[in-house]
Amino acid sequence: MRLPQFYVDDLIKTALREDINYIDITTDLMIPEDARGQARFIAKENGVLCGLDVALRVFELLDGSFKAEVYKKDGDMVNPGDLIAEMTGKIRGLLKGERTALNLLQHMSGIATQTRRCVEIVKGTKATITDTRKTLPGLRPLQKYAVAVGGGRNHRFNLSDGAMLKDNHIDAAGGITAAVAAIRKQLGHMVNLEVETRNLDEVREAINAGADIVMLDNMDIQTMKAAVELAAGRVLLEASGGITEGTLRAVAETGVDIISLGALTHSVKALDISMKIK
Amino acid sequence: MRLPQFYVDDLIKTALREDINYIDITTDLMIPEDARGQARFIAKENGVLCGLDVALRVFELLDGSFKAEVYKKDGDMVNPGDLIAEMTGKIRGLLKGERTALNLLQHMSGIATQTRRCVEIVKGTKATITDTRKTLPGLRPLQKYAVAVGGGRNHRFNLSDGAMLKDNHIDAAGGITAAVAAIRKQLGHMVNLEVETRNLDEVREAINAGADIVMLDNMDIQTMKAAVELAAGRVLLEASGGITEGTLRAVAETGVDIISLGALTHSVKALDISMKIK
Amino acid sequence: MRLPQFYVDDLIKTALREDINYIDITTDLMIPEDARGQARFIAKENGVLCGLDVALRVFELLDGSFKAEVYKKDGDMVNPGDLIAEMTGKIRGLLKGERTALNLLQHMSGIATQTRRCVEIVKGTKATITDTRKTLPGLRPLQKYAVAVGGGRNHRFNLSDGAMLKDNHIDAAGGITAAVAAIRKQLGHMVNLEVETRNLDEVREAINAGADIVMLDNMDIQTMKAAVELAAGRVLLEASGGITEGTLRAVAETGVDIISLGALTHSVKALDISMKIK
Amino acid sequence: MRLPQFYVDDLIKTALREDINYIDITTDLMIPEDARGQARFIAKENGVLCGLDVALRVFELLDGSFKAEVYKKDGDMVNPGDLIAEMTGKIRGLLKGERTALNLLQHMSGIATQTRRCVEIVKGTKATITDTRKTLPGLRPLQKYAVAVGGGRNHRFNLSDGAMLKDNHIDAAGGITAAVAAIRKQLGHMVNLEVETRNLDEVREAINAGADIVMLDNMDIQTMKAAVELAAGRVLLEASGGITEGTLRAVAETGVDIISLGALTHSVKALDISMKIK
Amino acid sequence: MRLPQFYVDDLIKTALREDINYIDITTDLMIPEDARGQARFIAKENGVLCGLDVALRVFELLDGSFKAEVYKKDGDMVNPGDLIAEMTGKIRGLLKGERTALNLLQHMSGIATQTRRCVEIVKGTKATITDTRKTLPGLRPLQKYAVAVGGGRNHRFNLSDGAMLKDNHIDAAGGITAAVAAIRKQLGHMVNLEVETRNLDEVREAINAGADIVMLDNMDIQTMKAAVELAAGRVLLEASGGITEGTLRAVAETGVDIISLGALTHSVKALDISMKIK
Amino acid sequence: MRLPQFYVDDLIKTALREDINYIDITTDLMIPEDARGQARFIAKENGVLCGLDVALRVFELLDGSFKAEVYKKDGDMVNPGDLIAEMTGKIRGLLKGERTALNLLQHMSGIATQTRRCVEIVKGTKATITDTRKTLPGLRPLQKYAVAVGGGRNHRFNLSDGAMLKDNHIDAAGGITAAVAAIRKQLGHMVNLEVETRNLDEVREAINAGADIVMLDNMDIQTMKAAVELAAGRVLLEASGGITEGTLRAVAETGVDIISLGALTHSVKALDISMKIK
Repeated sequence: MRLPQFYVDDLIKTALREDINYIDITTDLMIPEDARGQARFIAKENGVLCGLDVALRVFELLDGSFKAEVYKKDGDMVNPGDLIAEMTGKIRGLLKGERTALNLLQHMSGIATQTRRCVEIVKGTKATITDTRKTLPGLRPLQKYAVAVGGGRNHRFNLSDGAMLKDNHIDAAGGITAAVAAIRKQLGHMVNLEVETRNLDEVREAINAGADIVMLDNMDIQTMKAAVELAAGRVLLEASGGITEGTLRAVAETGVDIISLGALTHSVKALDISMKIK
Repeated sequence: MRLPQFYVDDLIKTALREDINYIDITTDLMIPEDARGQARFIAKENGVLCGLDVALRVFELLDGSFKAEVYKKDGDMVNPGDLIAEMTGKIRGLLKGERTALNLLQHMSGIATQTRRCVEIVKGTKATITDTRKTLPGLRPLQKYAVAVGGGRNHRFNLSDGAMLKDNHIDAAGGITAAVAAIRKQLGHMVNLEVETRNLDEVREAINAGADIVMLDNMDIQTMKAAVELAAGRVLLEASGGITEGTLRAVAETGVDIISLGALTHSVKALDISMKIK
Repeated sequence: MRLPQFYVDDLIKTALREDINYIDITTDLMIPEDARGQARFIAKENGVLCGLDVALRVFELLDGSFKAEVYKKDGDMVNPGDLIAEMTGKIRGLLKGERTALNLLQHMSGIATQTRRCVEIVKGTKATITDTRKTLPGLRPLQKYAVAVGGGRNHRFNLSDGAMLKDNHIDAAGGITAAVAAIRKQLGHMVNLEVETRNLDEVREAINAGADIVMLDNMDIQTMKAAVELAAGRVLLEASGGITEGTLRAVAETGVDIISLGALTHSVKALDISMKIK
Repeated sequence: MRLPQFYVDDLIKTALREDINYIDITTDLMIPEDARGQARFIAKENGVLCGLDVALRVFELLDGSFKAEVYKKDGDMVNPGDLIAEMTGKIRGLLKGERTALNLLQHMSGIATQTRRCVEIVKGTKATITDTRKTLPGLRPLQKYAVAVGGGRNHRFNLSDGAMLKDNHIDAAGGITAAVAAIRKQLGHMVNLEVETRNLDEVREAINAGADIVMLDNMDIQTMKAAVELAAGRVLLEASGGITEGTLRAVAETGVDIISLGALTHSVKALDISMKIK
Repeated sequence: MRLPQFYVDDLIKTALREDINYIDITTDLMIPEDARGQARFIAKENGVLCGLDVALRVFELLDGSFKAEVYKKDGDMVNPGDLIAEMTGKIRGLLKGERTALNLLQHMSGIATQTRRCVEIVKGTKATITDTRKTLPGLRPLQKYAVAVGGGRNHRFNLSDGAMLKDNHIDAAGGITAAVAAIRKQLGHMVNLEVETRNLDEVREAINAGADIVMLDNMDIQTMKAAVELAAGRVLLEASGGITEGTLRAVAETGVDIISLGALTHSVKALDISMKIK
Repeated sequence: MRLPQFYVDDLIKTALREDINYIDITTDLMIPEDARGQARFIAKENGVLCGLDVALRVFELLDGSFKAEVYKKDGDMVNPGDLIAEMTGKIRGLLKGERTALNLLQHMSGIATQTRRCVEIVKGTKATITDTRKTLPGLRPLQKYAVAVGGGRNHRFNLSDGAMLKDNHIDAAGGITAAVAAIRKQLGHMVNLEVETRNLDEVREAINAGADIVMLDNMDIQTMKAAVELAAGRVLLEASGGITEGTLRAVAETGVDIISLGALTHSVKALDISMKIK
């Protein structure tokens, strides 16, 4: 599993603590402690599987004797009826973990699926699809991983590891040129500098000032095309703001390098996957 | 704020820890520590506002001098252009908290908006809209609160506070009647008992066995109508499984008491709200 | 173990962190790291065993090679001299865990023993013995589990999962009838509603208003009898407040359904169990 | 408050998290957010007050506007009907904190009361009453503080800060003399060394070996008297094991320096204190 | 304070929990709770001050009434006898926080001082001084901040935010050229790529392969000079490994862009600062 | 391992969380998940090894299949080129853990090495070398353990387990004699009492007042010699303040019992140990 074990385990325990104050009142009163059973994850929709290791880890943490046979792996396409994994363990563990495991698996697969769809839409252009910081508390590693599994790339993880000059920063310095100069003197050599722009004049100034990446914020297609010509490969161009599946192809065809989509993580539709316990 | 302060503060700190390893590299290098500014939350879409206190709390935790004037409150409808709140504080705090605050506000408002829409659809019927345990790790209190703000009601919080006999529990006991009898002997008096059923025979058996609530799992409209007649008010009936906005009205008109919708929390579309900083 | 593993492990680690800042100064300096030994839990008093899995888990967390043979299980009666478990492991682990394990085992067994005694006292009546929220910080799951092991039932776990109208709530609404009506409109279907009453008029009003359970708060035996007649099985009646082992039988014979006893968890007498290490 | 704020706050938050998953379903639905009220802590039994700052802190953490007027302080005797404190704040905060505050206040006062009783019993002898490590997970600081408030003294806090040679340690070294010699070579100068003994021979050997304190474990009165004579003031003597209120005076009169009582913390009877909210 | 408040507060509480199990046995028994006093931080050595806000925060967390007048700020040079800050508050708070505050202040100032010395040594060359990941658990944000205060720059924060191809990664891909190509396809646009090299052939290959930064690992002065000529400004060059204050100037004069020094954080000499309480 | 497992594991996870937000971007993208390899810890300097179990635990937590063959153990002298341990496991785990493991191992070995050097310097005198509370947040257990491995002894762990009267405490009581009398009445029998003194008069008063240990704070050699004569073995004498390797022997030869050195933990020079992965 690429996600750090300590992160995944903490997240699962957070979920289990929410879901069980002290007893699974139905399962603990009705199912004998040593009763064992089988369960299966089955896809109910087309999509990209993501989070299988995370989902299976839920059961491992609940039941040391849990075992799984996996038939798909993260990144695989699944179709309705596809068997994803067969699991055996204590029925108590299977029942207690079912909801937590599915919540994680469906959410992550939902992100990967939506990302893959966007990646397909821009195929053949030079644009890469990237995520944003529009994530949910505690879930950013999970959500960024799912974007990567879906074929997207990850934008900066957080405010510490990439510099992004927005209008407030630029105003404080008295303009793009001054802002870029001021921050460059202090940035470490591993940090890239992106500048947000709203029109071609700003794009031009950002390029000349020495930005590594220029963000084209909420620009129309024509302006983006002009920005691509203006940049002529000297900087990376990121299109951002208000881009939907409907407009995505047109944006990509302008020649921008990166298209960032907040909806990949802030408006996720869970992928339908079921768990049947016998 | 109805949500517990300790919960909200922990969640916000989790988000901020993710978003700032040790520095907001752009803001800390570019904005003077004592520079102050104003900011506004503005609605960009129609919807139900939810999470305003939570969002404002982000800035309070970052800046002891932060103040806000609020023009809307949780549960209010907002329309594009509506001013939600005006905030003043250190610009550093406003910039560092912006993303975390919006992520929370947009997510919670998205849930409340979607819930309100469902509540409107079933208006005039006796059905109430309710959430499920299909939530994200660490966010259940937040998500259940947003459902309530949208006019929905909350299902059991977790596995400890409501009993729900599913097929595995029923099989272990040798049938619905036996299962209900077995668990009743052990349940505390504050715990209600719901039984999942898949056909009318099971509905009948569950009612006769003494369930408090009977869940009609993935039944068609006709069967639900028959179940309503059969129950004749002796138990509460909950419709669950595969219900969409398109089928919701029809389900409500069968006469069921409760309709539970996983999508309220597992497939949230963020409500578009912006924050402008001057 | 019915108690969630993550809860038990966190609690044990809390105890061990308290008990060992950085060294067991006596054991680590005197006992060779690889010295192995045997130990036994022996009952020194009559009572109901509870917490054996929890106690043994202490040693597992301290020593991966620890093994135990158990001769009793939670809920079993023990008598002075009874062998409860035989353990083998590193002597360092046995010595470091001894106090923490006994503290947990004796406390939980003390609760189970006291509960069993109360359950025996009311035998033959319809009354069930139940706990309260009068627990110690961090120990509620443990204490409620011990009550269940002793044969009692659990009252609501916390303020989120059961509604209890007390005088302040009732006053705010302008009376029992109004209060019940007001809260019913908002309660989820899994939540039961209990109303606290102090006299027969209030009992009558609570029943008519539609309470699920009526609490008879600090009433004398005669009033409780009258309440039972008045209720005539339409609601569950809970006797609460100032009930002691001496008055318990009389209370039960009034015909109430539930008797809640704060002392089960707020005034626990540890059960004497020893651990001998060879 | 002598107890560290960070410890007290963490403990209270642990208690509140247990008691409120996400809502106080009764209070949040019935009491207006801005309704304010008064409340009083009233003693219902004779005893020693302990934990007042801790109890009041519960309400401060729930309501920034909470204020209290205190009429008693930790260590004061209280009698039935005594007013301990008058509090004003939001009614929601008072109701949500009531149970947690009382659980702490009654537990701590119970310990202080029982300790005071033991201290009174031994008055006039040279014996001091001391606690043990027989505490509950997470509560040791609280419980040891309550013992001190009741007039007792604290034994070592944990396994790191005092050395206590028990039979297993002694056997590993081949006898008391060898054990004392072996550990002395490694102990820091701030650590005192206590040796457990079961008969006069062992007492003699421990004294000669250079113990700082000798524990008389489960000895009868005659043996303890003999040990006191034998020691003749060269070491401190601690009586421990199976001492009850009934035998306490006799033990003290043997002339031992310290009497440690596990029951002070493992078998606490809560002191009855009520909270009335208007 | 540039360091996040939540991080600083957590770290201070960790330190205080270590330093106070439940009582400051000397201070709590000897100093009246309401006694107030003054204290001063005084420099005892020449150096760069760092961590003043962090140190003062210790006392704020212990005493809500604490106030300080500051005469120096982070980054200022201090000389023996310089008054850094005057503080007033409860004496208990001053005494309990003294050690924790000094430990932080002296450590951070030690790092800033050593960094400043290195920055001075390379003055006039183009080289910048940078830190590494050779930090202590939990202290990385603090230590990296201190390096920045001393005039150094920060290398990547962690393994997530900068790519560094080491020999194992290169071997797995079959060479530098293949490794760079393979990772470039997957890196997000905010991530810079550094390649470790051990000789001029590797430097050449890394530059041609398209590295952003080339690390010259443990090279001698001559080789570094040759690498600078070879690079001719096409990439940034980082000198790393075994560089001491004695060799630092010579390394800088080779023309490298960056010199990273593990000793800045792994071998810190605390700066002597005293605290006097009156 | 003498350090508690729960402490070590928490510390390592803290370090790993700092070092990996969500991905080791180089390793996870370049090294196949199941690739296995060998690694070796090799000493590069003379010194005392310390922290080997801790360092190896890093890899165990990252990779369940990790195994190590150890050739040295904590406390052993190592020389340049010495093989300390050979490890096998997943290359991903080896690479991800390398930095964290080395940071711990080098820091702990640095402390043990420096301590051993001081112990050697005082050899033949009666003085023992001891640490202080001058440690870093979260690392005190680790650092005190390393001092012990180096042959030093541990001073009090924290403010709860040893009493130390400083000038502020003494002033509050009105002098040493009064202060000692006042605190003795309240101290538990396991707590030793040390008194800080600055001249011979204070030494005399402290001895007569009944201190267990007298600290000679920043005294010159002559004064210390006089203090030793004055004490004549009636109390332990601790030399403290401004003692360096250069003055250490002379201090020891005064006849003091204990020499405490803050630099052992506040100014650590990491011991050079490398890790080579194949």
